[in-house]
Amino acid sequence: MEHIDGNWFREENDKWSGYSIGIEVERILYSEKSEFQEILVIKSKSFGNVLVLDGVISAAERDEFAYLEMMANVPLNCHPKPEKVLVVGAGGGGVVKEVLKHVSVQKVVACEIDKKVVDVCKKYLPSLSQDYDDDRVELVIANGAHYMKEHSGEFDVIITDSCFEGPGEGLFTDEYFKSMKTALRQDGVLCFQGENIFMDLPLIKEIMTISRKIYPNVEFGYSIQLTVNGGHFGFIVCSLNKNTSFKEPLKTYTDKEIEEMNFKFYNTDIHRASFSLPNFVKKELYNDTVIVQ
Amino acid sequence: MEHIDGNWFREENDKWSGYSIGIEVERILYSEKSEFQEILVIKSKSFGNVLVLDGVISAAERDEFAYLEMMANVPLNCHPKPEKVLVVGAGGGGVVKEVLKHVSVQKVVACEIDKKVVDVCKKYLPSLSQDYDDDRVELVIANGAHYMKEHSGEFDVIITDSCFEGPGEGLFTDEYFKSMKTALRQDGVLCFQGENIFMDLPLIKEIMTISRKIYPNVEFGYSIQLTVNGGHFGFIVCSLNKNTSFKEPLKTYTDKEIEEMNFKFYNTDIHRASFSLPNFVKKELYNDTVIVQ
Repeated sequence: MEHIDGNWFREENDKWSGYSIGIEVERILYSEKSEFQEILVIKSKSFGNVLVLDGVISAAERDEFAYLEMMANVPLNCHPKPEKVLVVGAGGGGVVKEVLKHVSVQKVVACEIDKKVVDVCKKYLPSLSQDYDDDRVELVIANGAHYMKEHSGEFDVIITDSCFEGPGEGLFTDEYFKSMKTALRQDGVLCFQGENIFMDLPLIKEIMTISRKIYPNVEFGYSIQLTVNGGHFGFIVCSLNKNTSFKEPLKTYTDKEIEEMNFKFYNTDIHRASFSLPNFVKKELYNDTVIVQ
Repeated sequence: MEHIDGNWFREENDKWSGYSIGIEVERILYSEKSEFQEILVIKSKSFGNVLVLDGVISAAERDEFAYLEMMANVPLNCHPKPEKVLVVGAGGGGVVKEVLKHVSVQKVVACEIDKKVVDVCKKYLPSLSQDYDDDRVELVIANGAHYMKEHSGEFDVIITDSCFEGPGEGLFTDEYFKSMKTALRQDGVLCFQGENIFMDLPLIKEIMTISRKIYPNVEFGYSIQLTVNGGHFGFIVCSLNKNTSFKEPLKTYTDKEIEEMNFKFYNTDIHRASFSLPNFVKKELYNDTVIVQ
């Protein structure tokens, strides 16, 4: 089996040439090629069950909470009243689960191109999955770009949980960015994954440039987990409202509320801190001398 | 050769069971067992030259700047006037180079137990090394703990650039922590590496507990690079002055000063942000409910 080397799964791909994260395997739980991608689930020695899509680590039970909490709660806490939310690339529903923690949310559309991924996550990564039977959730098996074209002006927040490269054809093209815009309601907010600053800065810059042509308000944030994407991930947030402040969330949390929301990673300080960027990143993405203080 | 698997170096160790970072190798530049450790230098495909000590990636030319800048500039910018600085585990002098950027610094003692590491870094990782001929620098080949016992009340800042486990015998014991205290001047500040929150939290907690018994003011910060330590690193800062504010540095930088200091990573925002911790870390290390806002 490709990427399996004795007891180890080795993530090696052309995008990140010369770098590889290895996860020790206790047992292969599932391996199948779906209509869209190679799906592999391993029971790992140290990270719980791990989902791998086309040879790239997608989620590990042990540390995925850090990614899910940031991807969902940063955009939702920057919107004044998120009621209807779309998650593209919803997979097992890890992001959906976070979105549903917000009491203002009345409806979440979970759009996933590959039904097999939904089923596999439900079975093998239940701790990262959301029961799609919840009354507020609609699961749609479809291409996200196509779905958005048919659902104009519907969503307060759209979260795209996908790499820039992947099976959802049409994702992260100019066309996709325009589709997200038409699917948003007034003052709508977007969040999508923004890769690794040490490896992907030219790609991130390109996506930021496209985003800025379409949205009046675009920011780049950065956070961490361990096993996916080299242990870090960027996220790009966009708003139709130029006054949206991503760095200073509208909704902040007390200690008690943090407990009630069951946030293991996200808090208001981390939210703010995630927009503090190293100089080499600021220079590339904000195209001016560094701004501090 | 151990850890070399075809064209790949694989970091695998007992400490981080089940996890491995791989670096593709173009050529082995150096490999020798010194009196203290196995030293390996590889010319990598994507990260420049990489130093490996006892099978653990120690520094890569491409991303080490992020680590060096934080380890040196966080403690120095929290001291009112750092004049005399000790760097233990100074290696090639990457931290020393950052320390020397500060105009108040009159003297840096670079203490390194393994002379071979100094020589190897100078030859193979010159971009991360400091010319030890600088008048302000004294290179001492010695065990850091022993050195400090003989140099009481001398230093404004002590930076220990070493893992919790390593060749410097006596490092990170109660004894070592007490030695650092006696080697500090009044209002002295310490900084030492604090491992990975996703992998090493029990160890970090233990070190924080020891530190708090000895110093009136102890904080844990967190930052990122890519190839070392799973792509993240904590740092523990301690002060003899309970009023030292690590989260709000005494010295802040304008855009122009950032350029002049040649900081690729460090800025005042990043300094502050590095003390914003995820809830699961706060709970372990600060032993109370999470504090936000």
